[in-house]
Amino acid sequence: MSFVIVGSLAFDTIETPRERRERIVGGSGTYCALAASFFTRPKVVGVVGTDFPKGTIGLLRSHRIDIKGVSRRSGKTFHWEGCYGADPNMRTTVRTDLNVFAGFKPELPPSYRSADILYLANIDPDLHGPVLAQVRRPKLVAMDTIRFWIENKSEAVFRELRRVDVFFANDEEVKLLAGDNNLVRAGKKLLERGPSIIVTKKGEHGALVFGKEFIFGVPARPCEDVVDPTGAGDSFAGGFLGYLDKVEKITPREVRRAAVYGSVVASFVIEAFGIDRFLTLTWGEIETRFREFKKLVSF
Amino acid sequence: MSFVIVGSLAFDTIETPRERRERIVGGSGTYCALAASFFTRPKVVGVVGTDFPKGTIGLLRSHRIDIKGVSRRSGKTFHWEGCYGADPNMRTTVRTDLNVFAGFKPELPPSYRSADILYLANIDPDLHGPVLAQVRRPKLVAMDTIRFWIENKSEAVFRELRRVDVFFANDEEVKLLAGDNNLVRAGKKLLERGPSIIVTKKGEHGALVFGKEFIFGVPARPCEDVVDPTGAGDSFAGGFLGYLDKVEKITPREVRRAAVYGSVVASFVIEAFGIDRFLTLTWGEIETRFREFKKLVSF
Repeated sequence: MSFVIVGSLAFDTIETPRERRERIVGGSGTYCALAASFFTRPKVVGVVGTDFPKGTIGLLRSHRIDIKGVSRRSGKTFHWEGCYGADPNMRTTVRTDLNVFAGFKPELPPSYRSADILYLANIDPDLHGPVLAQVRRPKLVAMDTIRFWIENKSEAVFRELRRVDVFFANDEEVKLLAGDNNLVRAGKKLLERGPSIIVTKKGEHGALVFGKEFIFGVPARPCEDVVDPTGAGDSFAGGFLGYLDKVEKITPREVRRAAVYGSVVASFVIEAFGIDRFLTLTWGEIETRFREFKKLVSF
Repeated sequence: MSFVIVGSLAFDTIETPRERRERIVGGSGTYCALAASFFTRPKVVGVVGTDFPKGTIGLLRSHRIDIKGVSRRSGKTFHWEGCYGADPNMRTTVRTDLNVFAGFKPELPPSYRSADILYLANIDPDLHGPVLAQVRRPKLVAMDTIRFWIENKSEAVFRELRRVDVFFANDEEVKLLAGDNNLVRAGKKLLERGPSIIVTKKGEHGALVFGKEFIFGVPARPCEDVVDPTGAGDSFAGGFLGYLDKVEKITPREVRRAAVYGSVVASFVIEAFGIDRFLTLTWGEIETRFREFKKLVSF
């Protein structure tokens, strides 16, 4: 099949209790594409400034990621700065410089327009329409969103929910959007708003996947050293959707396995700053950890 | 085998966002014994005042719980008052009246002294020694503790860890006791302090069981309506230890299944106030839900 990701390519400045890293490469599109590249050949749509490293473009290419949809514009690349507390689930945004991302109008190259799976990473929900208009009958459309859009454009988020099959969000966002403090009720309420699958990401507590006729719970891999949680959610989505693209089947069984592969890839990403762990990650490591997940939950 | 529980029989006043219940029956020993009674015939050691309802004593008896170790003393029964927020994992203790529990000196009837499994529910760690002195070579000793003892008697808690096989606590308590913000490192650190199994209870996020050679993760059963979380932890311990007492084997495989049965029983208890759900709970319901847990996590 074919998998198109629309998201950001960015610089992140990250502070954890132990370390600070300035302007390292990040972005929802970058993480998602690298994660998916272990399963399929994803195509990315995004925009970078003239300061975006050629080395990273080379890295994406070496992972067989199609970057025809990434345009380079004069100006600076999107820059996000965030700070994590002792609890890595807690993060504060220090600043956001949209830069060239401010005027982002996603344009899909012709070869992208027959995408089977389309992932709208955390972008302005008002950009979804123009993207969807460029894609011919995708088999599966997925979106992610964040608190900012839920708080500022909730109507647009709800409108877009009606057009997607899979909705990714963290547990706080699912509760906020559904207006319900109980995650299970909240997940079920969102199922009634359009998507057939709601994936709630709970950081160190794993993920809960709500389908029309099943619920699947996967714990996070117990991790002794979370170096940098940035990108875990987008890597989860990349592993999840990349796997579905690879197996070409969207059955409950494959959705469950997709969620485990999402968790597996996310469990690697948090072991190093930024996208560093992707530089050494191998398929063998992913398969080994998939089997470890089986052991972790089997009884 | 035989299973002895040392804990409290109490009155609880509970306030949730929806409802307030005054002086309903609770207590760690009560919950644990009722939960365990679905697997084995537990024996309880505790103390009640003259105000403790005869009906509850009858209920315990009808669940084939041995209450020879429960003494009735003149005065009032232990009373705890707590308040839950919209997040049922968050609870505040409003008041604690120890009453007759203040002078609790656990005395085990002769028929209790050959216990195979001994559970020291949340009691003063300085009471452990006198209890252990009354039991001949138990196969497994388990304890629970709470923030109060960790903050006020941490040395005693660490001393007692050396004498137990299984340590139950919630995730915050495990982190606090180990002095480590990372739950996995904290769990492993406590494994080095004595117990061979650390069970960290995470409320709506399930539980993580650390053994010397395995980690087992079980999500909580997705629950749309948490009526009253009180007693979930002690019911988990009751299901866990009651199951091990029943199967008479303490292998990693049975420990995993024990944790699932603990989760199953806890998932019922929170569906009603206090111990009410135990009044109607059947073995068939427990088995059905055990199978649901299999489905919940299988991939």
